[in-house]
Amino acid sequence: MICRVRTQSNSPKLKAKVYITLKRGVLDPQGKATEQALTRLGFRGVEEIRQGKVLEFQLSESDPKRARAELEEMCKKLLANTVIEDYSIDLDE
Amino acid sequence: MICRVRTQSNSPKLKAKVYITLKRGVLDPQGKATEQALTRLGFRGVEEIRQGKVLEFQLSESDPKRARAELEEMCKKLLANTVIEDYSIDLDE
Repeated sequence: MICRVRTQSNSPKLKAKVYITLKRGVLDPQGKATEQALTRLGFRGVEEIRQGKVLEFQLSESDPKRARAELEEMCKKLLANTVIEDYSIDLDE
Repeated sequence: MICRVRTQSNSPKLKAKVYITLKRGVLDPQGKATEQALTRLGFRGVEEIRQGKVLEFQLSESDPKRARAELEEMCKKLLANTVIEDYSIDLDE
């Protein structure tokens, strides 16, 4: 999990990014299609592409600890399918 | 543009992440739907969500400068619709 913390003194509210990616070994047809399209366009330097989602949050929460805990719960309950997907939370203070 | 560089001495090949997000002001129905679903589940701390894509590249290129230039071109030609989307490239050495 990556966590970068930046200070913004004028705003107590938090921003966060949540990355949702397929676990290793899970087939990724979207990534495969992009790979093939790039090859057809003449880009030879691509070996593999895996496609995922990024969700940019504007939170009303101002406490980083509580915000992270809430985001973890959101990931488990709705945002990620933890059988086939991994998630990571990147909190900006 | 965010660029984090990490050294992996055992591999000359590069990895990169490309983030594609909607420009400010462009309507994001996917993000809105996620927002509403989270609110229905009882998460009150979400003010806004914007949804984007992340593409994880395994490149055969080993020169960071050339790799970045190639990725820029891929974004402009195929990966991002630059009328409504922004992209950023995060290269891992």
